[in-house]
Amino acid sequence: MLLRCLAVASLCLSATFVEAAVPVLVIHGGAGVIKSEMTPDKEKQVRADLEAALKAGNDVLKSGGSSLDAVTKAILVLEDSPQFNAGRGAVFTHEGKNELDSAIMDGATLRAGAIAGVHRVKNPVLLARAVMEKSPHVFLVGDGAEAFAKTVGIELVEPKYFRTEQRWQQLQEALKAERKQQASALGRMIHYGTVGAVALDQAGHLAAATSTGGMTNKRWNRVGDSPVIGAGTYANTRCAVSATGWGEYYIRAVAAHDICARVEYANKPIAQAAKDVVMDVVPKLGGDGGVIALDSDGNFATPFNTDGMYRGWIDRDGKMHVAILGDEGRP
Amino acid sequence: MLLRCLAVASLCLSATFVEAAVPVLVIHGGAGVIKSEMTPDKEKQVRADLEAALKAGNDVLKSGGSSLDAVTKAILVLEDSPQFNAGRGAVFTHEGKNELDSAIMDGATLRAGAIAGVHRVKNPVLLARAVMEKSPHVFLVGDGAEAFAKTVGIELVEPKYFRTEQRWQQLQEALKAERKQQASALGRMIHYGTVGAVALDQAGHLAAATSTGGMTNKRWNRVGDSPVIGAGTYANTRCAVSATGWGEYYIRAVAAHDICARVEYANKPIAQAAKDVVMDVVPKLGGDGGVIALDSDGNFATPFNTDGMYRGWIDRDGKMHVAILGDEGRP
Repeated sequence: MLLRCLAVASLCLSATFVEAAVPVLVIHGGAGVIKSEMTPDKEKQVRADLEAALKAGNDVLKSGGSSLDAVTKAILVLEDSPQFNAGRGAVFTHEGKNELDSAIMDGATLRAGAIAGVHRVKNPVLLARAVMEKSPHVFLVGDGAEAFAKTVGIELVEPKYFRTEQRWQQLQEALKAERKQQASALGRMIHYGTVGAVALDQAGHLAAATSTGGMTNKRWNRVGDSPVIGAGTYANTRCAVSATGWGEYYIRAVAAHDICARVEYANKPIAQAAKDVVMDVVPKLGGDGGVIALDSDGNFATPFNTDGMYRGWIDRDGKMHVAILGDEGRP
Repeated sequence: MLLRCLAVASLCLSATFVEAAVPVLVIHGGAGVIKSEMTPDKEKQVRADLEAALKAGNDVLKSGGSSLDAVTKAILVLEDSPQFNAGRGAVFTHEGKNELDSAIMDGATLRAGAIAGVHRVKNPVLLARAVMEKSPHVFLVGDGAEAFAKTVGIELVEPKYFRTEQRWQQLQEALKAERKQQASALGRMIHYGTVGAVALDQAGHLAAATSTGGMTNKRWNRVGDSPVIGAGTYANTRCAVSATGWGEYYIRAVAAHDICARVEYANKPIAQAAKDVVMDVVPKLGGDGGVIALDSDGNFATPFNTDGMYRGWIDRDGKMHVAILGDEGRP
């Protein structure tokens, strides 16, 4: 918590001295981890990218930057990696396109920006942030969101930039399974890839951001939970959450806001609130996935009910941690 | 509340007898009422349409139908009227199109459906409901949502169906004000037109639905709060809410879910919870508007902080009430 230097002014270094909060950063790269498909090479690359994302965000926080900048920088690294279902590594829609969604929220002011269904925006999180900071709106979709992107100088790329062989093959397998009317063997990978970050900065302010390619073989311009403020992304003065799960269930549960409401109105610790929603509310509806959740005292949790969730954190001790499977690391 | 006939079985008419809840229906036609613009003729038409919507929903409830069917039927009447900013009477976008959004939620099961940015769907609430009942998704937007509409036989109309002279003139005035860089005199009408309904049926189940044309002169495929589950539309087993306000602020406040979270976790009466969000949380962010909110005991509230809000209700006494300005009727 922020402790202003008022009562014992003689101990202050200056009139504006503020005792800084110890910053915390937590990230995820999606809960769509399938244990049997994790090769040593893939694991090595994923861990390196998660560490790079943590470093990028932490550099901002250590130098006194905002949680908003920290989550943005961390997400940029994950969007630029082909390993995660967001930005460069986004999955393919039924029609063989990449359709990107993102949201960002500033806990201190409750400002938010979200975009869905863009095809040419290199870094969707930058467009979500531009919607928040440079438009009168919160939520833009499709061609309109791309038209807005052009007016504010957001980098656009050719659609082929998002074409990775692994994702293309996943679509082919999903289409094949669909033709055979089989439940896809890629079930988890289909629903749960996403990247996200939550941060607490030295000023004691929280922020959250999420970015995703949605689900493989999605159609009809389906929007998942990531860009829905309150479902996949939410932050206020006490609590910040980014989710990665079967989006439809996270929307119906208003999962991110529900976690923060349990903290605020029911006085639940953040870990209990996050666990209740991820391990009880969402599964009872039929969905699964995970979240990263952080409170304004720097307490955080990373619950999930899938094989694993790509995740990492820099705790108040300043040390970097990365984990993939369920039995690895804390919290 | 539902009282199952178990303890005094001898008084039951049959083994499956259930004491029915007294149904309640509350509707709104938007908080964009400007007192000085209310002519006697417009007022008469609005009141007649609100009464017709109440009757349509109440016919369902009285005959033992579901709250889901009741809110659907009530919204259909309001969408078909040119008086409200939804369906037929939708406002125009910057480009001179009508772009429709809607959502519906079933409190008993937390199932939900939402659509945004469709141009040819005669009754957006029917498409939202079809997304809920006939797709694996919750939220579809734009051309994809219309493509889905075709697969399930939802009625499409030519875009000219939505052209009403009043709305076209409102766009011209908004464009003129924009060119002069003036705050538009139509400020309220620009932001707050929407229709919504919440209902409690004899089985004790709640539902909520909202439908809107969004804001006059909107651009970039802007999505407001109406189709965002948790923001403009939400229902669970204890609480149902439909909002009509400056959508951006209702999204940032996750207004509908926040009202229900205050009821569930802070044990606030529904009227207090709705008032706190509408009269305090949203205005502090800079927005305004109103909501209709109903709990599972049949208590309800219709707070708003604009000149007026088109609204109506059929209370537990079975009587029909319609109101427009702030000082008229209860609650």
